[in-house]
Amino acid sequence: MIITNEEVVSALGAILTESQVTVNQTVLEQHSGDESYHSASLPDIVVFPATTEEVSKIVKIANQYKMPIVPFGRGTSLEGHVIPYDHGITIDFSLMDKIVEVREKDFLVKVQPGVTRSQLNKELKKYGLFFSVDPGADATLGGMAATNASGTTSVKYGTMRDQVRDLEVVLSDGTVIHTGNLAEKSSSGYHLNGLFVGSEGTLGCFTELTVKVYGIPEYIMAARASFQTVNDAVEAVVSILQAGIPIARVELVDEISMKQVNLHSKTAYHEQPTLFLEFHGNEAGLKQDVEFMKEIVAGHNCESIEFETDNTARNQLWEARHNLAYAYIHGHPGKKLMVTDVCLPISELAGAIAHAREALNLLSLPGGIVGHVGDGNFHVLLMIDMDDADEIKKADEFNELIVMYALEREGTCTGEHGVGIGKQKYQEKEHGEALLVMEKIKQALDPGLLFNPNKIIKIKK
Amino acid sequence: MIITNEEVVSALGAILTESQVTVNQTVLEQHSGDESYHSASLPDIVVFPATTEEVSKIVKIANQYKMPIVPFGRGTSLEGHVIPYDHGITIDFSLMDKIVEVREKDFLVKVQPGVTRSQLNKELKKYGLFFSVDPGADATLGGMAATNASGTTSVKYGTMRDQVRDLEVVLSDGTVIHTGNLAEKSSSGYHLNGLFVGSEGTLGCFTELTVKVYGIPEYIMAARASFQTVNDAVEAVVSILQAGIPIARVELVDEISMKQVNLHSKTAYHEQPTLFLEFHGNEAGLKQDVEFMKEIVAGHNCESIEFETDNTARNQLWEARHNLAYAYIHGHPGKKLMVTDVCLPISELAGAIAHAREALNLLSLPGGIVGHVGDGNFHVLLMIDMDDADEIKKADEFNELIVMYALEREGTCTGEHGVGIGKQKYQEKEHGEALLVMEKIKQALDPGLLFNPNKIIKIKK
Repeated sequence: MIITNEEVVSALGAILTESQVTVNQTVLEQHSGDESYHSASLPDIVVFPATTEEVSKIVKIANQYKMPIVPFGRGTSLEGHVIPYDHGITIDFSLMDKIVEVREKDFLVKVQPGVTRSQLNKELKKYGLFFSVDPGADATLGGMAATNASGTTSVKYGTMRDQVRDLEVVLSDGTVIHTGNLAEKSSSGYHLNGLFVGSEGTLGCFTELTVKVYGIPEYIMAARASFQTVNDAVEAVVSILQAGIPIARVELVDEISMKQVNLHSKTAYHEQPTLFLEFHGNEAGLKQDVEFMKEIVAGHNCESIEFETDNTARNQLWEARHNLAYAYIHGHPGKKLMVTDVCLPISELAGAIAHAREALNLLSLPGGIVGHVGDGNFHVLLMIDMDDADEIKKADEFNELIVMYALEREGTCTGEHGVGIGKQKYQEKEHGEALLVMEKIKQALDPGLLFNPNKIIKIKK
Repeated sequence: MIITNEEVVSALGAILTESQVTVNQTVLEQHSGDESYHSASLPDIVVFPATTEEVSKIVKIANQYKMPIVPFGRGTSLEGHVIPYDHGITIDFSLMDKIVEVREKDFLVKVQPGVTRSQLNKELKKYGLFFSVDPGADATLGGMAATNASGTTSVKYGTMRDQVRDLEVVLSDGTVIHTGNLAEKSSSGYHLNGLFVGSEGTLGCFTELTVKVYGIPEYIMAARASFQTVNDAVEAVVSILQAGIPIARVELVDEISMKQVNLHSKTAYHEQPTLFLEFHGNEAGLKQDVEFMKEIVAGHNCESIEFETDNTARNQLWEARHNLAYAYIHGHPGKKLMVTDVCLPISELAGAIAHAREALNLLSLPGGIVGHVGDGNFHVLLMIDMDDADEIKKADEFNELIVMYALEREGTCTGEHGVGIGKQKYQEKEHGEALLVMEKIKQALDPGLLFNPNKIIKIKK
């Protein structure tokens, strides 16, 4: 029996309003790609549910017609996660964008999956609270949970997985479950929170999230420290961590990327390898920490350190960092972004970054190096001409060199962007026989293989 | 075909030395119970592997003869986790007690599962490092990972799940996998670390762990603060947390438990509701935090606050806290320990503790209340006469009242002790349809249902 899209649209039309189901070409195209170099592919149908119940019904219909399902937030993924290569139904969560409850006293907030991090922080500010995870993009909370996103503050506050207390999830048969509870810790049953966070839409659709939030710190100090070399900057970070200084943010931006920052953000920062730093705490404690930090960076050839004393300058600093990928994209019209994303034990970081720079030179590839260096995570940003087969090949080779270097040192091929399709070829090398365990879990929870098929894991039907 | 234990012993004898396999009655009895009130049950055979390869071979033999497998550390579980109610082979990990590698610069340590927390901390002290998770018992790291243990420091450093970077696991078919890597964060594949931590031996046997460790803080301040009422003490903690004071430890010990502490630990602390507090950081920061904390507790009728200025007094304070369960046990010879273990959102904690005290009075049960109150986790310690059916019934009723109160407020039935058999009856109420997801995972990874059968989840064969 051949199923036509018309039949599926008609079944979806019976449970949704007219404006919630579309096969409009422009809308399909808007859901055919992400922010990466991965090639586009159209969904057959895009739906815009407004409630968990509607998501459950959509999933049941998808099941009935054996249509793949791809959950979609803002399309800011970097490894092709949301691209529907198997077509089917894309579920766009933009109508599910309510902040359901701020539990101020519990430092918890319940949100729908379409809420973005900037939207959430705007609301939380009223309560003196903030949400810590800050990828470059203004992604949705649902999308950030799907990839276990992180950002500049993970060195202190952790990744998305560390924030999620509970997920409401629609499973492959339409059942709705909760993966956790609102307690700070639990030893009850298997840890489904941890399993579903980072599952990239392959095990279920998130329809509500409860996440941890934090009090805005009493006192914040931010600084830019410029170094002679990237290696000096990285060694300084390793020394700061080893000294036990509780740092809230520490970002490496190399000299090439500092140029992009200045061009895009109209700043006039030194165009040298730089650390963007931030400390959170009480005034007396921070002053002591910062004095200690200054001694340490001086011992690593720090050439200048400038403190951002007012709020505006501090916000500008972090906005410039967040917009760095966009700075590269806007600075290279017509080209596509490829970003490496390895993470290594901190003792291996300086070597890995030096290796990346050598490999760039060897392959004559232009690229900037930035990183959440406090976590051992760094990115090389490459702008690729997708019409130049040789450049694509070299960029792929480069990515592979970087990944292999990390895996040989017990690191990971992706620190925060996720697997999607871009890191799939490294899964067996990284996980070995554990990949079979992941396959068993996928098959047990999504036997029809309809949830974001062939992402993370490729299972032969 | 009926399989005799002799056949299995003989098969095990072919891969292990004589002293590594036993059916000696005394040894079987040593592996028949834990530290709780749950009734004992003998294993058929106890084995003492020395390597991962031996564990893998034991699991394959168990498979061949359809013998249940129970991993065993120090037998300090509190919900019957290690009691082999289905008999079979108990794997005692006491020979696998090596600290394999201290990666000082990475703040990581690789250990075998039989290493205990005190053994690890003794070694780490040489490097200026410590391992943070500290349940009352001197449990093994393998056992602590199996139950997602926590303790007095979780409010700052997190639970066992937060420390585990990688587990080497022997699966039900004898395959050996690694669940993670040594990077600080990863978005690669499903999060198997999180799934296996807390799986209580039902999904595999841990044969090696890599866990995070921390630098011993530059400056530590500990204190005892006495209050008029338990409610005052709890409200003070909630205020301290809401003020954003970064506390490293905050333990509630009620007046009854303070008496047990003094009796057992030969201390002369005030026998009033008390908070044991500790702060970690730099000197200037801590002094400011402590001044703020003193203001807050004064606002909650704190009657006295005493700082432990020297190391010895500070160690004595925490040793007294760690030995509290043993203090109760030794103070009530012939009786057995039942400990409740709920955890709730912090805004619900004061109400929950008041409810527990009322329920104790209503049922005329003697019991002390202690808790890791910074996490919203508290324990009621009951000493039960196991020959008094009425007392057992009342204690069970009490436990159920406490659990239901927590579940109705989106808490959990077990904050840190785990499910074992004691919390099994609450799993459906707590997890709803998510329990079916857990069952599917169990069946996918242990189709023969041999790994610690009927713990956490009961699946009909």
